[in-house]
Amino acid sequence: MNTFGKRLTLTTFGESHGKAIGCILDGVPAGLKIDEAFIQSELDRRKPGKTKLETGRKEDDKVEILSGVFEGLSTGTPIAMVIFNTNQKSKDYDNVKDLFRPGHADFTYFHKYGLRDYRGGGRSSARETAARVAGGAIAKLMLKEIGITIQSGLCEVDGIKAETIDFEHAKNSKLCALDPHKEKAQEEAVLNAKEAHDSVGGVVLTRATGVPIGLGEPLYYKLDAVLAEAMMGINAAKAVEIGDGVASTHLKGSQNNDAITPQGFASNHAGGTLGGISNGNTIIVKTHFKPTPSIFQPQQTIDKAGNPVTLELKGRHDPCVVIRGAVVTEAMMALVLADMALLNMGRKIDHLKALYPQN
Amino acid sequence: MNTFGKRLTLTTFGESHGKAIGCILDGVPAGLKIDEAFIQSELDRRKPGKTKLETGRKEDDKVEILSGVFEGLSTGTPIAMVIFNTNQKSKDYDNVKDLFRPGHADFTYFHKYGLRDYRGGGRSSARETAARVAGGAIAKLMLKEIGITIQSGLCEVDGIKAETIDFEHAKNSKLCALDPHKEKAQEEAVLNAKEAHDSVGGVVLTRATGVPIGLGEPLYYKLDAVLAEAMMGINAAKAVEIGDGVASTHLKGSQNNDAITPQGFASNHAGGTLGGISNGNTIIVKTHFKPTPSIFQPQQTIDKAGNPVTLELKGRHDPCVVIRGAVVTEAMMALVLADMALLNMGRKIDHLKALYPQN
Amino acid sequence: MNTFGKRLTLTTFGESHGKAIGCILDGVPAGLKIDEAFIQSELDRRKPGKTKLETGRKEDDKVEILSGVFEGLSTGTPIAMVIFNTNQKSKDYDNVKDLFRPGHADFTYFHKYGLRDYRGGGRSSARETAARVAGGAIAKLMLKEIGITIQSGLCEVDGIKAETIDFEHAKNSKLCALDPHKEKAQEEAVLNAKEAHDSVGGVVLTRATGVPIGLGEPLYYKLDAVLAEAMMGINAAKAVEIGDGVASTHLKGSQNNDAITPQGFASNHAGGTLGGISNGNTIIVKTHFKPTPSIFQPQQTIDKAGNPVTLELKGRHDPCVVIRGAVVTEAMMALVLADMALLNMGRKIDHLKALYPQN
Amino acid sequence: MNTFGKRLTLTTFGESHGKAIGCILDGVPAGLKIDEAFIQSELDRRKPGKTKLETGRKEDDKVEILSGVFEGLSTGTPIAMVIFNTNQKSKDYDNVKDLFRPGHADFTYFHKYGLRDYRGGGRSSARETAARVAGGAIAKLMLKEIGITIQSGLCEVDGIKAETIDFEHAKNSKLCALDPHKEKAQEEAVLNAKEAHDSVGGVVLTRATGVPIGLGEPLYYKLDAVLAEAMMGINAAKAVEIGDGVASTHLKGSQNNDAITPQGFASNHAGGTLGGISNGNTIIVKTHFKPTPSIFQPQQTIDKAGNPVTLELKGRHDPCVVIRGAVVTEAMMALVLADMALLNMGRKIDHLKALYPQN
Repeated sequence: MNTFGKRLTLTTFGESHGKAIGCILDGVPAGLKIDEAFIQSELDRRKPGKTKLETGRKEDDKVEILSGVFEGLSTGTPIAMVIFNTNQKSKDYDNVKDLFRPGHADFTYFHKYGLRDYRGGGRSSARETAARVAGGAIAKLMLKEIGITIQSGLCEVDGIKAETIDFEHAKNSKLCALDPHKEKAQEEAVLNAKEAHDSVGGVVLTRATGVPIGLGEPLYYKLDAVLAEAMMGINAAKAVEIGDGVASTHLKGSQNNDAITPQGFASNHAGGTLGGISNGNTIIVKTHFKPTPSIFQPQQTIDKAGNPVTLELKGRHDPCVVIRGAVVTEAMMALVLADMALLNMGRKIDHLKALYPQN
Repeated sequence: MNTFGKRLTLTTFGESHGKAIGCILDGVPAGLKIDEAFIQSELDRRKPGKTKLETGRKEDDKVEILSGVFEGLSTGTPIAMVIFNTNQKSKDYDNVKDLFRPGHADFTYFHKYGLRDYRGGGRSSARETAARVAGGAIAKLMLKEIGITIQSGLCEVDGIKAETIDFEHAKNSKLCALDPHKEKAQEEAVLNAKEAHDSVGGVVLTRATGVPIGLGEPLYYKLDAVLAEAMMGINAAKAVEIGDGVASTHLKGSQNNDAITPQGFASNHAGGTLGGISNGNTIIVKTHFKPTPSIFQPQQTIDKAGNPVTLELKGRHDPCVVIRGAVVTEAMMALVLADMALLNMGRKIDHLKALYPQN
Repeated sequence: MNTFGKRLTLTTFGESHGKAIGCILDGVPAGLKIDEAFIQSELDRRKPGKTKLETGRKEDDKVEILSGVFEGLSTGTPIAMVIFNTNQKSKDYDNVKDLFRPGHADFTYFHKYGLRDYRGGGRSSARETAARVAGGAIAKLMLKEIGITIQSGLCEVDGIKAETIDFEHAKNSKLCALDPHKEKAQEEAVLNAKEAHDSVGGVVLTRATGVPIGLGEPLYYKLDAVLAEAMMGINAAKAVEIGDGVASTHLKGSQNNDAITPQGFASNHAGGTLGGISNGNTIIVKTHFKPTPSIFQPQQTIDKAGNPVTLELKGRHDPCVVIRGAVVTEAMMALVLADMALLNMGRKIDHLKALYPQN
Repeated sequence: MNTFGKRLTLTTFGESHGKAIGCILDGVPAGLKIDEAFIQSELDRRKPGKTKLETGRKEDDKVEILSGVFEGLSTGTPIAMVIFNTNQKSKDYDNVKDLFRPGHADFTYFHKYGLRDYRGGGRSSARETAARVAGGAIAKLMLKEIGITIQSGLCEVDGIKAETIDFEHAKNSKLCALDPHKEKAQEEAVLNAKEAHDSVGGVVLTRATGVPIGLGEPLYYKLDAVLAEAMMGINAAKAVEIGDGVASTHLKGSQNNDAITPQGFASNHAGGTLGGISNGNTIIVKTHFKPTPSIFQPQQTIDKAGNPVTLELKGRHDPCVVIRGAVVTEAMMALVLADMALLNMGRKIDHLKALYPQN
């Protein structure tokens, strides 16, 4: 239940206010150079408190590798990584101890499990995504070896849509904004919401280039379907599109089909998949995030006994989770593609014969 | 790779123009009344050739149960079901034998597996969804026992959006239209496309009522994430929304949060899940389907040798796959919920103790 | 629950007295020549009623492939196979309808599932192993491509142990006897038991030659552990040994360790695995089968209501299930090795790079 | 590959000479009292260096819980446990850096993964079993709630067989000896081997009492088959027997069948399973362990380049791994039974209805 993937598996653990969070990444081929500085740099992209657009909670998110790496190389055994929690202030949550925060998982966890870990989001906290980023970083190292690159950025904030798409710009933007011309307006939307003790949503565009033809396993482990699961499983995600997605619904077949030429596809409405298998084109996914449920306006809710209460949240929260969500979408896409690359290895009997030559 | 689910698993087989398609549904609890007439009626909803809005290919889609049922009850052993193909005309495909149809999986299957089953879509044909519907029908019988009902209908065709939602109307509509007032215009859009040798897309709204609180397994088998995978895995699906989905991106947190009252949630922007777990509200999913890729206009493509060719498709195809897709979304939702209901059984130690009483 | 394997998966269905039994084999690489005559010949080795050493129940066990093969080659999609039951005489079981046969699964199935499929063994019948043999035959075809051969034979019947091991002899022996000199005595033991309305047990020796180094996935999908599961899961199996097995327990470390020389291992006490991974030596497994529980002597049992009854079994049963079990052990070993060969493909990053060359 | 179980899953990590070993146990129902002192006491039973019958390597094996427990109760989220390595002396292995130790996994790991973690056994070290014991301890706490007790002891050492079986005695015996009368001779066999720089093997008897009828999932997750996998996967295991095991092969069916009486089974040749499902009787498993491969006599081997070498092992090793193996077999049995108990929860539709009552 806490494991993602089939051949490359990420199993995560940890609560936002427990001792530590972490993961075991299993299935990494032996001999991969494990660049620890790169893993940390990915975590730094996700860590909170970098700018005023984010939550004030500061976490170093220092990752420590406990196993699976020897003399700088993966050994083929499980790679365990741990991040100790250093800045948990459970006190912030004393006043919500017995309440359910609207838009949060408090209500469902309590009813499912019969108890309440009231310290922040507990297991359902977005803090857990740090473990995904750590695992995703190693998946990226694998993908780099076969020429696959993953990038992301925000293509919409509070309804303000990007019109140009510039992944290089997003890389250095505090907002991860894809459109340099819309960035200012998008930032203001976030800050305005923050000032109003409210929050905004947004959309992340994530893409993979250099993907070989053939990744994805029909019929129940399709590339697009698993990407949809991967993205929808990120906290606050509410919709996922592949390629043109919603827009393709409004086209005629004659407009939406990507013509095939000797030089490749003439267009990429499909977003790089056909029949659930990569077609060699750029993989394109859009993930829509709802506005952060943690807001500082009074809200109507109930307590564990079912009595109506007005909730006044304290603590430190992101006015727009989408910003820090971008790197998480990259991690999830990397995990999916690396898993698919491994699963795809036995697709032809000739490959099997090549790897087991008979003397 | 051809298995869906964890505790209730559906494994399907078969190609559109092979001998048969079918499935094994494993994990059905013993003692469930297996209503074969109901299973067949679900298949009848999906079968082609019922109206002029659909493909002319006629298939009886008669399902036969081979195992797992004794004296009308499930026995707890795997239920195998088979549907023999009776109306396959492989000849229809003679002229596309060496070509890749745009928008189809021909190209990716050929490159992945190194060979081409040119008889229709082969394994990637939407015909395979009959096996899902058969399995989903049994899942529905399970869900009925615990009070869960699943319904669906088209909320958009060729950009024409439903404004009223009437699931009872959809049940008897040839188009599965949710809005009786838009039905006429939507039908015309389909017929116009058909006449133009083109195709249109659309959106299916699927919902489950009566879902208990607690279904969904954090963090990597969340209810919403698995529904996203289930729906995106259906042929031609390009986007999936949970609850308000895309629209929630444009709201502020204060608008999007569902307030909690002693009587339940005051609204249902979330679509029935919080933190990946059902919250007792109606589960709402929208699945966006691209226009059918099989159109009868000339299209630019290449052959297996890479030479440019103009493709002139023949055969029988749906001008709008969404119509017959609706019942498939129901089947997938039923499979997901039944799986989740079983997985959820060991969530509390008290449940374990109740089922294993010590003398 | 009815699926075996991880990367190559066999899902079986069917009851001994239902319409059909069969399987879906998923994960077979594309391009494998599917020799249907070979598959049938393997089923013929297992089918009942060939000699007086076996049950009188006659089944043709004609296998039909429903999917996954096109123009004689595997397509990479699931291969469904079905065997229709033609000689089920449920009447034979009328007198045991409400009784539990000692040594059988009647008792446990009834208590687990709350109902009783009294027609023979139902799902727990050894008839199901025909589906394993069908799947195993295709696994053997895969293994043949990489130089692996599997053989088996009986090394013990009713306590009479083989002293010479001759797999070629076993191939043509009605008893699958490995030792031509003991065959006669072993046959007599079987016939004597038959005459006494009793049954005997025995031991099958199964081996694989040509296995490359490296198959087996530490730590929880070890080659020897999965072989143990595979063999112990066959009806009537009660013990499994790898290599010297029980005998190795009586040796000193200095005697039991296989010395390593530049030409390979100096001995093979280990039976071809070290640390759960194949070491290039012959894989050797012994499976111990109890005497057939179906005997025709009066036995003490109870009925469903818990009343004591004397059971007088009728019907047709093998006096020694081990004989027909040999080919089943081969099938299981083939499934395990083929699965392991596929899983092993991504063990080194260099292999991944080789299969995804960048232009 | 490093995950054991289906519904209750144990994923382990770590090498003998790395920073830490540990595990994630996922699927524990919420509300279970987590007795940390008990977990530590189980680890203490396994830890090395307690007596002169064991290796001189001393490890505290202090376990730390990182997640999944709140206010002393399991929360339903993954329980991560870590044990830091404190006494690793990699220097001990300097002289075997480029050699393959006979009977060890050095050879197979090197060939599979292409590199050599020469510090002790690396991942293949028996040290990893500490993680199993930690996970197994929590499984035992679960089982205790439903009345299941697991015990073990040595029923054979160096060929010296127990004649009386006394689990209470084993609990307090340094050797875990089941037979107080044979204990002395068995101890001497171990000490003699130690003095001779050699090692001995032995057999562990493990049993579970109080097991309800119905655990085990036919046909490919049978209780006996999974127990066989669980036990055979422990380092140095070479054979597994269920119930009478090998001995049942020598009986007639009329002797081996357990008669059924209104008061229960008249005997327990079967060892508590029928058709792969628990029958309410005591579960009995015997695991045969080979003599420790690490011996201090000169041994013939090769180095990585394939040159012949005489190996002179140094370091600290158990003369008889079976002693510390007993508690590991208990852990594995506990994990299997707890997993099966959870899987079994949805076996009847009535149970589903009971847990999801409709208002």
